[in-house]
Amino acid sequence: MDRIRNGWFSELSELWPGQCFSLEVKEVLYKDKSKYQDVLIFESKNNGRVLALDGIIQCTQKDEFSYQEMITFLPLCSHPNPENVLIVGGGDGGVAREVDKHPLVKRCVQVEIDDKVVESSKQYLPFMAKGFTSPKLTLHIGDGFEYMKQHTSEFDVIITDSSDPIGPAVNLFTESYYKLLKQALRPNGIVSSQMGTMWTDLPQIKQTMNNCRKHFPNVRYATSSVPSYPDGQIGYLVASLDASLDLTKPSFKFTQEQITEHNLRYYNDEIHSAAYVLPNFVKKELY
Amino acid sequence: MDRIRNGWFSELSELWPGQCFSLEVKEVLYKDKSKYQDVLIFESKNNGRVLALDGIIQCTQKDEFSYQEMITFLPLCSHPNPENVLIVGGGDGGVAREVDKHPLVKRCVQVEIDDKVVESSKQYLPFMAKGFTSPKLTLHIGDGFEYMKQHTSEFDVIITDSSDPIGPAVNLFTESYYKLLKQALRPNGIVSSQMGTMWTDLPQIKQTMNNCRKHFPNVRYATSSVPSYPDGQIGYLVASLDASLDLTKPSFKFTQEQITEHNLRYYNDEIHSAAYVLPNFVKKELY
Repeated sequence: MDRIRNGWFSELSELWPGQCFSLEVKEVLYKDKSKYQDVLIFESKNNGRVLALDGIIQCTQKDEFSYQEMITFLPLCSHPNPENVLIVGGGDGGVAREVDKHPLVKRCVQVEIDDKVVESSKQYLPFMAKGFTSPKLTLHIGDGFEYMKQHTSEFDVIITDSSDPIGPAVNLFTESYYKLLKQALRPNGIVSSQMGTMWTDLPQIKQTMNNCRKHFPNVRYATSSVPSYPDGQIGYLVASLDASLDLTKPSFKFTQEQITEHNLRYYNDEIHSAAYVLPNFVKKELY
Repeated sequence: MDRIRNGWFSELSELWPGQCFSLEVKEVLYKDKSKYQDVLIFESKNNGRVLALDGIIQCTQKDEFSYQEMITFLPLCSHPNPENVLIVGGGDGGVAREVDKHPLVKRCVQVEIDDKVVESSKQYLPFMAKGFTSPKLTLHIGDGFEYMKQHTSEFDVIITDSSDPIGPAVNLFTESYYKLLKQALRPNGIVSSQMGTMWTDLPQIKQTMNNCRKHFPNVRYATSSVPSYPDGQIGYLVASLDASLDLTKPSFKFTQEQITEHNLRYYNDEIHSAAYVLPNFVKKELY
């Protein structure tokens, strides 16, 4: 499955028929087939380094910070005391990099199924993989489902940094996954998950939110701008076991000094609230 | 200049090097060269009808409402009494369609330079061109610069619905254009203009805002999500002659009944405020 032709990588997928985003390739850095998926890392001409799994862009150096910061701080800054954090997936290290920045986090466990993603990211995507050097972090290579079955009532926040609902990540959008998340959470725990684009995936988002609502009383959809994802946008499902918590109002706010110190390029407390404000065509479907 | 190959239209441009968005083509409906630009209208496979000028997508049926509603209602709903409106450009009729919906507008003048855009839109893009049937509207085919030189202190709101700063629209981003806008406005008038994407055009946005600031005391940048534009996002420069007006707080709010009646699919008063909330990397550059 070679998606590079005439020096351009094209992201064709049955998930978004009739449209395609392409990036000009400067140099292919890594290409391999793991037990789970095709892993490709290339240097693009104008978007920095790019990671693609099964031909789908996971992150580019130009805009990855929007996704990593938002999927991390939307749940962490809403939780009054996010001491214990679990990351499911996130093999590039970007989410671990952001979790490390939150002053209230004491311990972070990450469970990633594909060690080839971790190893190739360490070698070719150091700007993200530096997350693996966090002193708070313990990394397990394994199945997030199995890990959570053995760890109940343990985490304050669980972040599911997955690929799209096709291939190895398909189970991360089901009702049984949200049941497991609930069991692995401490009281009043919060989860966040990658949740597609409002322009193309609205039926899938609606269904996943309904799956989540069977186990969580408080379920919201937020968005941020990420040019290299389909439709230039990505969504986040954020859910809390605390029915009365207003997820749109952060309880922890980074100071301007912390924003500079931690190089937060996207997230701030105003963005936190604005991310939950939706166009009429989306509001109508989801709420 | 044929941008359609193997059944796909590809939007390559020196304005966004190294990246490219493509749409699968079902049928080419119109193709001509006007005095000003190449005009192409096609039926796409999954995004409805598409208008491209000089090979750059101006609107697709799937997502045009985000752009048209936002460039129109950000200024109109901030103005306490937008009785007289001028549209510069907007040859597809989409902005005129939205202006017609605002209850306080009494009269709207539109000046579009290219009658081939108007005529082909009337024939092939009726969902936008229906804006031309507004009883409030007078359409002039001509140069917006020349029109404004002859009409001073006349308009409450001026909307510049242009293509990108290349080709016929290049002058609409200059200091002298903002001087003309100021002269054509009544006291406390407001303008809005298409203003590129924060991911690729930040230096251009900054420069245009500085051009505008030489004549307007109150200049802001807002954004909305539009998948078929570069980076899946577009920005709006909104400026007021009233230095004390908070452009982020709409003075006119559509009721839920009006939203339904007028088929507003994107804009609401929460979106109005959220559109001005910017990621740190953008805030730092523009304010």
